[in-house]
Amino acid sequence: TVGQEGDYPVEVTLRYVAGERAGEERTVRAKYVAGCDGARSGVREAIGRQHIGGISAHAWGVMDVLVNTDFPDWRIKCAINSTHGNILHIPREGGYLSRMYIDLGEVPEDDDHRVRQTPLETVIAKANEILHPYSIDVKEVAWHSVYEVGHRVTDKFDDIPLDGEGNPRVFLTGDACHTHSAKAGQGMNVSMQDGFNLAWKLGMVLTGRSPESLMCTYSDERQPVAQQLIDFDREWSTLMARKPEEIEDPQELANYYLGTAEFPSGFMTQYTPSMITGTDEHQGLAEGFPIGKRFKSCEVFKACDGNVQHLGHHARADGRWRIYAFADAPGPGEASALADWATWLSESPESPLVRHTPADGDIDAVLDVKVIYQQGFEDIDLTTIDPVFVPRTGPYGLMDWEKVYAAGNGTDIFDERSISRDGAVVVVRPDQYVAHVLPLTATEELAAFFAQHLLPQKI
Amino acid sequence: TVGQEGDYPVEVTLRYVAGERAGEERTVRAKYVAGCDGARSGVREAIGRQHIGGISAHAWGVMDVLVNTDFPDWRIKCAINSTHGNILHIPREGGYLSRMYIDLGEVPEDDDHRVRQTPLETVIAKANEILHPYSIDVKEVAWHSVYEVGHRVTDKFDDIPLDGEGNPRVFLTGDACHTHSAKAGQGMNVSMQDGFNLAWKLGMVLTGRSPESLMCTYSDERQPVAQQLIDFDREWSTLMARKPEEIEDPQELANYYLGTAEFPSGFMTQYTPSMITGTDEHQGLAEGFPIGKRFKSCEVFKACDGNVQHLGHHARADGRWRIYAFADAPGPGEASALADWATWLSESPESPLVRHTPADGDIDAVLDVKVIYQQGFEDIDLTTIDPVFVPRTGPYGLMDWEKVYAAGNGTDIFDERSISRDGAVVVVRPDQYVAHVLPLTATEELAAFFAQHLLPQKI
Repeated sequence: TVGQEGDYPVEVTLRYVAGERAGEERTVRAKYVAGCDGARSGVREAIGRQHIGGISAHAWGVMDVLVNTDFPDWRIKCAINSTHGNILHIPREGGYLSRMYIDLGEVPEDDDHRVRQTPLETVIAKANEILHPYSIDVKEVAWHSVYEVGHRVTDKFDDIPLDGEGNPRVFLTGDACHTHSAKAGQGMNVSMQDGFNLAWKLGMVLTGRSPESLMCTYSDERQPVAQQLIDFDREWSTLMARKPEEIEDPQELANYYLGTAEFPSGFMTQYTPSMITGTDEHQGLAEGFPIGKRFKSCEVFKACDGNVQHLGHHARADGRWRIYAFADAPGPGEASALADWATWLSESPESPLVRHTPADGDIDAVLDVKVIYQQGFEDIDLTTIDPVFVPRTGPYGLMDWEKVYAAGNGTDIFDERSISRDGAVVVVRPDQYVAHVLPLTATEELAAFFAQHLLPQKI
Repeated sequence: TVGQEGDYPVEVTLRYVAGERAGEERTVRAKYVAGCDGARSGVREAIGRQHIGGISAHAWGVMDVLVNTDFPDWRIKCAINSTHGNILHIPREGGYLSRMYIDLGEVPEDDDHRVRQTPLETVIAKANEILHPYSIDVKEVAWHSVYEVGHRVTDKFDDIPLDGEGNPRVFLTGDACHTHSAKAGQGMNVSMQDGFNLAWKLGMVLTGRSPESLMCTYSDERQPVAQQLIDFDREWSTLMARKPEEIEDPQELANYYLGTAEFPSGFMTQYTPSMITGTDEHQGLAEGFPIGKRFKSCEVFKACDGNVQHLGHHARADGRWRIYAFADAPGPGEASALADWATWLSESPESPLVRHTPADGDIDAVLDVKVIYQQGFEDIDLTTIDPVFVPRTGPYGLMDWEKVYAAGNGTDIFDERSISRDGAVVVVRPDQYVAHVLPLTATEELAAFFAQHLLPQKI
């Protein structure tokens, strides 16, 4: 049960199911509870959420096998359609092992999950039937299983009613709130993204950097993603399960696979405007960083040593927000919009750096500010640059040499990501999603954006 | 002492130097002994070898430091020359740490190693003196040391006298047979190469695949490499230690560094003809694989799945010899010099595969044979190719899909490595050095080459 008062408003009753104390009950009080307890989630039931969707009527056998074969494309990912059914074939690591998803056909309504008892020999025989005139001589089965495809998603991923208000205390992640087939290869990825989305927000709230209302954005953001995954998986499974005569163009499946490639890469999700995702008035200043989508990295030159590196590889999973300042045309040391912005950022009482950095923290403890110049790295001397970009941090107060980048020759991030030559400020969330794009002059908007979800630290 | 008879002809007398049994002696009898016992090697002394060269008279301080500084190139590798001396500056991993080698000047003849007691503060002061007008504010020293540069090499790396005959039983590796300064950054690399060279040869002899005479090639190959390293290091140290007025062209040092880049990359060594390195009559068939030098990898297409991979990355440190058959122009299944060669290799009683593979071993247990076709990977069907290139190995007799490659479009290894369109056979040693280049028709020479250093297995 979830109460409304005290530091630990959630009460969880647990029962030992094994060991000496089996049957005994125990009560735990918590600030927050995350239900990562799988498809039959007890947490989901306890908060009375609806799990929507049914077991569908198609069964698949799956096995990881070592074989000898005359099938020439054995080491290539294939979707195989024949009059006897379908196989999705995925070569695995190591040069020998392959995973096969084998179509076992429709499941009768009164089957009562008996299809799950299908013996391995039947699955192998079915695979050979589908592969005919080719065949496989199975030498070893490393793992196998039979499953029915079910597509289900929970109506909301926290304990606040659909039409209710307030800040949630209980959350659902992974299989507890979305189940589907394995063939899109996205179940683990999307579930880990659930976890990361939840974790950084809990971190911000529990360390006193953000208000409790931040937690509302978890279900708001992740429930639509799960729905999208399930739609994608259903479409993919349907395409796979067709008979040859239903296929007009053999290229169609390949086209669908390529057309949705952003999905398995994790780049299809786009969060909508909220307290942590801005609106797109200034999207034109950085077309290559769509607001609400994953920050798409690009190569830049580190100004301190001229090495080429991916800008995104400098972001760590440390719960910090990142502000990328793309400079306008003047170089370091010259009067510029960037120079004005940097002065404002380090000095103004309105600056998010000044307002939201704890008194006892490094200047980059909450907001990690980096700059990318349009010049080549040879033209940038870090010892003369605005100190907000070369902060002195850590126990020794050492200069940080790795926050200043150059677009340089070769790959130019300004071209690659369509960034305005008048500069731009790109704000990226702790989970690598682009939160906002603003002009260098829009200091008021930048301050207002952070004030929506970060608490003032120096009062 | 090394005897001439029995399975364990080497007798080693050891004395406990600590613990309960301190002072007690113990005798060990061995087939072979490797002296990896450092600069003051007892093994070297026991076999009466000469260690040639003296302690030279130049001292260096070395330290790994965290600093704040106004020196703008702090994160770049620099050779710094000033009137007060020289610094070799090498930024290290992690973005902050740097290693500095600081010139402490000439050491008086009667110094008796007192320079090694130079305090850290003196080394830091010297660094600042050299760096002036820049300076460093040292916040932390992770490690430091002072050393004098000594260049010494042992006359031979085994127990056979310079003008003697017979098969060696005792070997020296690493600092036991070559010492030098740390600045070329090659001491560990060359020493590990010593170890690898020795290890694969011991492996071949101890498993009965090669005769004991193979062990003569260890000192023959590695002693000249050590001599070359020491010459390189002496030249490099001398260049570094010059005064500004001795330097005509500041670019000279950079030129030397770049001109000898093959050395630190490990590609400069070239072994001379021996029982395991062929002569160069047919070098013209594969100019890009110089006999005696490291096999320089190149991208190819795996025929089984079309993936681009480095050919060299398929070689493992498993003690096997590798034979790369570069096909002539006809494709798989057509009459060709390659097809004749493959038939000879799998069937002829003269074939090294037939002669040198143990009866109970996989067909690729000693010789790992791979083929590279000139065609694109789409034109190659592994299920119809000569089985010598798709062997069935391991406990399940599984088809090996990863020994057939295609030159394909894009990077073409035939062009990149100047390989004859009439084909070529490139033999590579277990330590990745190119051993031989032969035409596909030179079966007799190929058989004779392996007969020099591999024993017949099926008599």
